[in-house]
Amino acid sequence: MNTPKILHLYREKLERGLSEVLRDPTLVGESSRDTDPLYPILRYHVGLCDENGRAVKALGKMLRPSLLLFTTQELGGDLDRAIPAAIALELVHNFSLIHDDIQDHDEIRRGRATVWKLIGISQAINAGDLMYSIAIKNALLSGVGAAGSIVDAARAMIEGQGLDLTFEERWVDAQSYIDMIDKKTGALIRCAFRTAGIIARVDRAVIDVLTSLGVELGRAFQIRDDLLGVWGNGDVTGKPQGSDIRRKKKSFPVALARKRSGEEGRSLLERVYTQERISDRDVADVIALMDSLNVKKSGEEAVEQHLKEAREYLERLPLSEKGKELMNELIVYLARREK
Amino acid sequence: MNTPKILHLYREKLERGLSEVLRDPTLVGESSRDTDPLYPILRYHVGLCDENGRAVKALGKMLRPSLLLFTTQELGGDLDRAIPAAIALELVHNFSLIHDDIQDHDEIRRGRATVWKLIGISQAINAGDLMYSIAIKNALLSGVGAAGSIVDAARAMIEGQGLDLTFEERWVDAQSYIDMIDKKTGALIRCAFRTAGIIARVDRAVIDVLTSLGVELGRAFQIRDDLLGVWGNGDVTGKPQGSDIRRKKKSFPVALARKRSGEEGRSLLERVYTQERISDRDVADVIALMDSLNVKKSGEEAVEQHLKEAREYLERLPLSEKGKELMNELIVYLARREK
Repeated sequence: MNTPKILHLYREKLERGLSEVLRDPTLVGESSRDTDPLYPILRYHVGLCDENGRAVKALGKMLRPSLLLFTTQELGGDLDRAIPAAIALELVHNFSLIHDDIQDHDEIRRGRATVWKLIGISQAINAGDLMYSIAIKNALLSGVGAAGSIVDAARAMIEGQGLDLTFEERWVDAQSYIDMIDKKTGALIRCAFRTAGIIARVDRAVIDVLTSLGVELGRAFQIRDDLLGVWGNGDVTGKPQGSDIRRKKKSFPVALARKRSGEEGRSLLERVYTQERISDRDVADVIALMDSLNVKKSGEEAVEQHLKEAREYLERLPLSEKGKELMNELIVYLARREK
Repeated sequence: MNTPKILHLYREKLERGLSEVLRDPTLVGESSRDTDPLYPILRYHVGLCDENGRAVKALGKMLRPSLLLFTTQELGGDLDRAIPAAIALELVHNFSLIHDDIQDHDEIRRGRATVWKLIGISQAINAGDLMYSIAIKNALLSGVGAAGSIVDAARAMIEGQGLDLTFEERWVDAQSYIDMIDKKTGALIRCAFRTAGIIARVDRAVIDVLTSLGVELGRAFQIRDDLLGVWGNGDVTGKPQGSDIRRKKKSFPVALARKRSGEEGRSLLERVYTQERISDRDVADVIALMDSLNVKKSGEEAVEQHLKEAREYLERLPLSEKGKELMNELIVYLARREK
């Protein structure tokens, strides 16, 4: 399927912006100075260059900053004022990926070696911290309201990541799962819409609808992600198939499978998820159990349900007809995406 | 020696402030909700409670926020407006300690288990990230200028930490060492003075003098720290003696020892610092070499020299006579401190 237009509109601007803010600031002609070891890896991580510093085009979808910029424009806000906030949001997302990959021991992201895999855990922690700092510095350029909105979202995202890690040690019910993803994933997506509303100075009531739209899109996005984490095609997602099972993530499919399982299924899950290492055979067994319980179909239905609600909030927003059409195209994409 | 008065003046305010901002925001009577796993460890780390959540008084010196508040008052600024920035600065410092302890594999800080030792590396990364987020959120309450100043300092600090890690792999000269500590340690100390100047809205020229004062104090502080990292009394510093040698830190003493060494000394250093693990015997040999080269005395002289320059900048600031007296008391303390 084609990438929706919203994700094309601002790519050049965002690429240029990322490229500018991730330059090593100490490189000002003083060749005798120690160059900073972290900036090259930040540029690598966002996909501006390969591990040898050669320019490549490997940027991600840039969903969050695209939503922020599109919504700002549709609400009549100043695009130039929104750009630093959009860059900040993309950097916050990327900082969290650098640290998540350490925590999850992931060696591959989007088909490329992860940061810690290239430079070690210690320096990867610094790389994430530095990217977060650059993010906030940029957010401040969009004003104190936008910066506050982005820091709040980052904070919620980190709390969500903290909860998600505790899930590796226990079973969770649907409510705990939703609370966690509303933070871990939802926070930055809500933030894209809220920050647009703040920059465009819309009424509080509109901010509330923007937030609700973000909540629903965030849930749909994460549940789709969870489905791809089990059934996704590794060649497309850039991650091995069944990777979320191997990492013992208490994601949507396993929470639902456990809820629907009889005694036999539960004991299989109990056995697999309490093991030190999960084998290929275990992964296949868990997927077979999920398939027998119709988990994938229910997940797809849940995604559709959240997107339906998202569409209802979208209808209540003061966007142009063309704007709503493009948002709807994006919503269809989020439901069907394969990576 | 007695703790200088500046470090007493704001302790209660700072303790109350830290206690407020490190409360779990999800704890609002909804007992059914998952409590956040990270907030208790943040309170533990700053010394508000022990690892079981029992209140204790184990806060650090709080040098940076005390300097910020004292300088703001002396420059005629609004203390209440400066408090969130001061809290932010202390939190940025503490966030960096959480991540540094992971990077340095340190198990003990100020006589207590480090965060990663208690909750593991993955969750400790989140704890640091969360503390940084809370810091920035507070900094914004002191205005966009103060927040920008604090984020700039955090960024420089992280760059310094990145450089310091590369030093573990190579020898460094005096200039590289100074460049690194000006970032890693100096940035937050300069920031205390600069941010006070920003909040008190002093002239650019005064901000420049405040910055220079911070640079000199930062260098004195770090070189003293480096001396304690080799010759400090473990019972007082809360770290084992010779710990910086064991961790292969290219700190002031080893850089100077290498510069002054003959062939024999250099080959000792080369042998010790390229080993996988450094034995007690190696540590003793390196300290003996340093002692034969008068390194400790030269370090103490370097500290005195930077403090002398600090005093000269201090004289040029529009502080009260009493204020200068108290700052001088602090300067003497920094030169002599044993922890």
